[in-house]
Amino acid sequence: MPKVTFLPHKKEIQVDEGEILIRAALEAGVHVNASCGGEGLCGKCRVMIEEGRVADGTSEKLSRQDVENGYRLACRSRVIEDLVVRIPIESEVDAAVLNMQATPRRTARIQEMNLEELKDKGLFMPPVEKKYLELPPPTAQDNLADATRLVSFLKLKHNEHRLVVELPVIRKLPDALRQDDFRMTATLARPVHEGRKTRIIDVQPGDTANRNYAIAVDIGTTTIYAQLIDLISGDVLAQFGEFNAQISYGEDVISRIVYAEKPGGLERLHAVVLQTINTVIRKIIRRAGIETGEVSAITLAGNTTMTQLFLKVNPRYIRRSPYVPASTFYPPIDAVGLGLELADHVSALVFPSVSSYVGGDIVAGVMGSGVYRTEELTLFIDIGTNAEIVIGNKDWLACAAASAGPAFEGGGIAFGMRAAEGAIEDFSVDPLTQEPMIITIGNVRPKGICGSGLIIFVATMFEMGLIDNQGKFNRKLDTPRIRETDGIWEYVLAWEDATQIDRDIVITEIDIENLIRAKGAIYSACMTLLAEVGMGIADIERIVLAGGFGSYVDLAKAMTIGLLPEIDPDRVTFVGNGSLMGAKMSALTNRIRRDVVEATRKMTNFELSETPSFMDNYVAALFLPHTDLNQFPKLKARLDQRRAVLNS
Amino acid sequence: MPKVTFLPHKKEIQVDEGEILIRAALEAGVHVNASCGGEGLCGKCRVMIEEGRVADGTSEKLSRQDVENGYRLACRSRVIEDLVVRIPIESEVDAAVLNMQATPRRTARIQEMNLEELKDKGLFMPPVEKKYLELPPPTAQDNLADATRLVSFLKLKHNEHRLVVELPVIRKLPDALRQDDFRMTATLARPVHEGRKTRIIDVQPGDTANRNYAIAVDIGTTTIYAQLIDLISGDVLAQFGEFNAQISYGEDVISRIVYAEKPGGLERLHAVVLQTINTVIRKIIRRAGIETGEVSAITLAGNTTMTQLFLKVNPRYIRRSPYVPASTFYPPIDAVGLGLELADHVSALVFPSVSSYVGGDIVAGVMGSGVYRTEELTLFIDIGTNAEIVIGNKDWLACAAASAGPAFEGGGIAFGMRAAEGAIEDFSVDPLTQEPMIITIGNVRPKGICGSGLIIFVATMFEMGLIDNQGKFNRKLDTPRIRETDGIWEYVLAWEDATQIDRDIVITEIDIENLIRAKGAIYSACMTLLAEVGMGIADIERIVLAGGFGSYVDLAKAMTIGLLPEIDPDRVTFVGNGSLMGAKMSALTNRIRRDVVEATRKMTNFELSETPSFMDNYVAALFLPHTDLNQFPKLKARLDQRRAVLNS
Repeated sequence: MPKVTFLPHKKEIQVDEGEILIRAALEAGVHVNASCGGEGLCGKCRVMIEEGRVADGTSEKLSRQDVENGYRLACRSRVIEDLVVRIPIESEVDAAVLNMQATPRRTARIQEMNLEELKDKGLFMPPVEKKYLELPPPTAQDNLADATRLVSFLKLKHNEHRLVVELPVIRKLPDALRQDDFRMTATLARPVHEGRKTRIIDVQPGDTANRNYAIAVDIGTTTIYAQLIDLISGDVLAQFGEFNAQISYGEDVISRIVYAEKPGGLERLHAVVLQTINTVIRKIIRRAGIETGEVSAITLAGNTTMTQLFLKVNPRYIRRSPYVPASTFYPPIDAVGLGLELADHVSALVFPSVSSYVGGDIVAGVMGSGVYRTEELTLFIDIGTNAEIVIGNKDWLACAAASAGPAFEGGGIAFGMRAAEGAIEDFSVDPLTQEPMIITIGNVRPKGICGSGLIIFVATMFEMGLIDNQGKFNRKLDTPRIRETDGIWEYVLAWEDATQIDRDIVITEIDIENLIRAKGAIYSACMTLLAEVGMGIADIERIVLAGGFGSYVDLAKAMTIGLLPEIDPDRVTFVGNGSLMGAKMSALTNRIRRDVVEATRKMTNFELSETPSFMDNYVAALFLPHTDLNQFPKLKARLDQRRAVLNS
Repeated sequence: MPKVTFLPHKKEIQVDEGEILIRAALEAGVHVNASCGGEGLCGKCRVMIEEGRVADGTSEKLSRQDVENGYRLACRSRVIEDLVVRIPIESEVDAAVLNMQATPRRTARIQEMNLEELKDKGLFMPPVEKKYLELPPPTAQDNLADATRLVSFLKLKHNEHRLVVELPVIRKLPDALRQDDFRMTATLARPVHEGRKTRIIDVQPGDTANRNYAIAVDIGTTTIYAQLIDLISGDVLAQFGEFNAQISYGEDVISRIVYAEKPGGLERLHAVVLQTINTVIRKIIRRAGIETGEVSAITLAGNTTMTQLFLKVNPRYIRRSPYVPASTFYPPIDAVGLGLELADHVSALVFPSVSSYVGGDIVAGVMGSGVYRTEELTLFIDIGTNAEIVIGNKDWLACAAASAGPAFEGGGIAFGMRAAEGAIEDFSVDPLTQEPMIITIGNVRPKGICGSGLIIFVATMFEMGLIDNQGKFNRKLDTPRIRETDGIWEYVLAWEDATQIDRDIVITEIDIENLIRAKGAIYSACMTLLAEVGMGIADIERIVLAGGFGSYVDLAKAMTIGLLPEIDPDRVTFVGNGSLMGAKMSALTNRIRRDVVEATRKMTNFELSETPSFMDNYVAALFLPHTDLNQFPKLKARLDQRRAVLNS
């Protein structure tokens, strides 16, 4: 990997070959003015290549002379070898401030399921297993019933006990046995608890034991993801995601519940989510090149409302105080009976929920990420429209849903958008000139700003002293970037001619307020849970982020705004789709199904609206980063340092 | 009850008021010539009423003088008070022989299920129970999921543990709870084994705990019987039997299997037996005046083929050596899924079988009659077309199916018929004149002879020396009753003008041979089973008869022909439809379901055709009563006595 050294501050970073230079700068924590998102239009990101060569990097914004002198546009240059790059700096003060302003970008380390560890620990034991058997044919002296012959053989030769043969299997068994001279493959469904009954759920003539697959599904409110898993190797053979067709009936769970209460509404929502799930199932089965009949198990996780709609259980009381779900546990359910396009013998294993707003997706995340069996005090946060948090370790678990609102997904933000092409995803600012450096997804002119970009914006502006701890802009600065429009103060991220939307893209104080409310809801929820168990933020040893948002969020910035407590970024991991991870895990190790019962029972749910201390914690968290800056000692040190530099 | 004393031998008997005098005579073991079946046509049964009065009894066969002298026709007289009746006897020898000839009629004592004993022993615990609950409504501080609330309450207040809430119940629960302010009735399905999971299978608003019913069904090859049982009181509220509609596809199990092997045959036989069962279910539900939804359980028993057809399991291999059924055990099966017209939450509990020809009907009989838990060595015989026998006690059980053929149902007998009006059901004979006394069902002119009548005929004729121990008539007697027709010897039971069919009704030596084969098959099966476990006939302490036939058979006569071993008649009981009795029992006490697994496993099946000693035993049993007369010491004594009387 080529190394890039940025002067004057000698910040070094290694990047992938082909990386765009301006991204390398941002990752290294180096500010370069840039306001067109990386499309090369504004020409502000000119840098001097002192050593090495870049690919591309020229532009009509650079004269031939500039190019000959080694200038390039950082946003158009690709790193192909080791470089030394000099950033033009206006003044010494500027240089000093810029040097300390930005911390290198640091997202959470990705935590994946460790299949080898599962295997080493003997926990690679799918809930459904196939066994190839060569049975002795019956004789006059040995004319046991076919089912008894099968059960006895499994007992004697495979040490399988407490076997139950299901009726559909009894129906198939006599012919299946005789089709290949009493050589056959039996599919066994394992009990949750050892010593309970193992069900023989299918029989096939001959040896099909090496073709055994499962499907893991995350039933998201917005998107349904599924993976097809080879139960012999543990590998994911195919995966696919598709919008949940229920979206036509409402974007969030509350509007889905309202629809479900209408006559026929529940049946409709049940039918359409099944449609989507079946579409996804068909797709991954085709992609993996297997037969539907070879899928032996399906595991699913979703929030409480999605779970109830999937199971055709009316979610009416979920949205009404005191917010009571119909059930938190569900027994294994006949997949075909539910409407899933799978073989007759498949059961759907559905993750349990904790409460109306801490659902099976969160439980799956807690299981998949291993929070339930860690020694360390861990904070698990799944950020979507709602943020669900779980705090605890192998001994105890407390959880709550925080009404964070959609700010992290760009919702409720004037120019907010999802993390798609044209979204401003990174930002830095020159604290003296207030000129921004913006980078968009796809390096195109900006259309708006996504959640992770907004966090970086607010954190950077705050740390640079351009907004105060209440999220208000410094009104005293002489810059056209900070202005008042219709009584609302705002910062111009991009002038209209540098955007795709022909309007100035701004962040208003209302946007910032929304973000502060969102992060305040989450942080105060953590505080509240911890206080309820007699602990404090400082006790947190590990953070696990789940949900798409978590993969992009810059950890230092999230700590700066007070979204996350300040801990060593090495101790923050990202599990991606925790719901899918848990679903997959429970398709690979039956132990999860046993542990999940205990873990779910252990998860003490707090209804924050009913927890008296919550409101105080919330109000205290409506500052950047918090009323109590001492909870963020590293930030406090940086702010002190900045003040010293500026005052010098 | 009036007492009748028959002279000259002073045989006394108490009978129901209104009983016909000739039946009283037969029951007392008193011979009166009578050949018209009791219709008063032959006039032979004239007796002298010496004390007391009878109702009716006159006839054109009696002159006014006869009547004035106290003569009456025994077959037309009804007993209304104590009587002394003199039977006209031809000679002293005649008198002596007649006096010792006939033992009083003695059928088996009826053994019924003892509900009070069940209750006393704490075993009155149906597999499905209803509980009325008044739950605390949820509050902000207590907003458990509805299912958790229910489970916790049952745990706390009703000491119910390991509860599973099924999905259909979760679907109903939220509204059911709120419909009557959290007062509701839960239906619990008990596990077979204590400590296993209790399933909550239904919930209803309000208190419906006192309306809980079950249906017990005997799936017979010919007839399907069902009872509707109140699970609160244990009472049978209604019962009904209907021909199994499968009869159109073959009368016996083999022809049903043959049909089932045709394309669509299995589905057809499954569908029609369900039709019949559903008809019977509807009938008893209507008769009992309850709602279908109030039936919580259904228990069923049938032979192996009937069970497989009911469950749509192809019985193909049952009729092919080595006679392998698909399964002997079946898990509880969703009743609606099977096609039963019952509520969604009902499971069908099907009795296990032992082998292809010892089915769930026999297991049910063994369970219902308590053979499986008795100390005494018991012989259980269920006689139908096949006779199944079980020998053993609480420690061991051996069983076999004996190909007895249909002789006991009148099949394969020249004038054989089922036990219906006009069937000769009782018989005695004057050993000197060879004149018969016949009584028919309904006291009408005879149409034929039923199985129990045939046994009495053969036994009586043998004991009177009119047929020898190979079933051959004494050819030396000078009587028109014993004659040779077309080379076959026969006895005329009724001359054509005294019958309804305008033909002489006869018993041929072929008929007798058929009966001997039938009884020989059963007796030799007992011998074989006993020999296999190192025991003998003399060890049998108790006999239990099942099947309709058993209620009519005269025990002494059955022992005389060697159908039953010679034991004290007090130790023979009749359980009627053992299959239905067992099915009912398992609807009333869950203990049966636990015990039946053990009992069925204990029942060692013998395929007689594969048991080398069987053929020897069979050949030895093809005599009256047996080659070895010492096995029948009482009969031997009577035969010696008769010989002495006749020689005197």
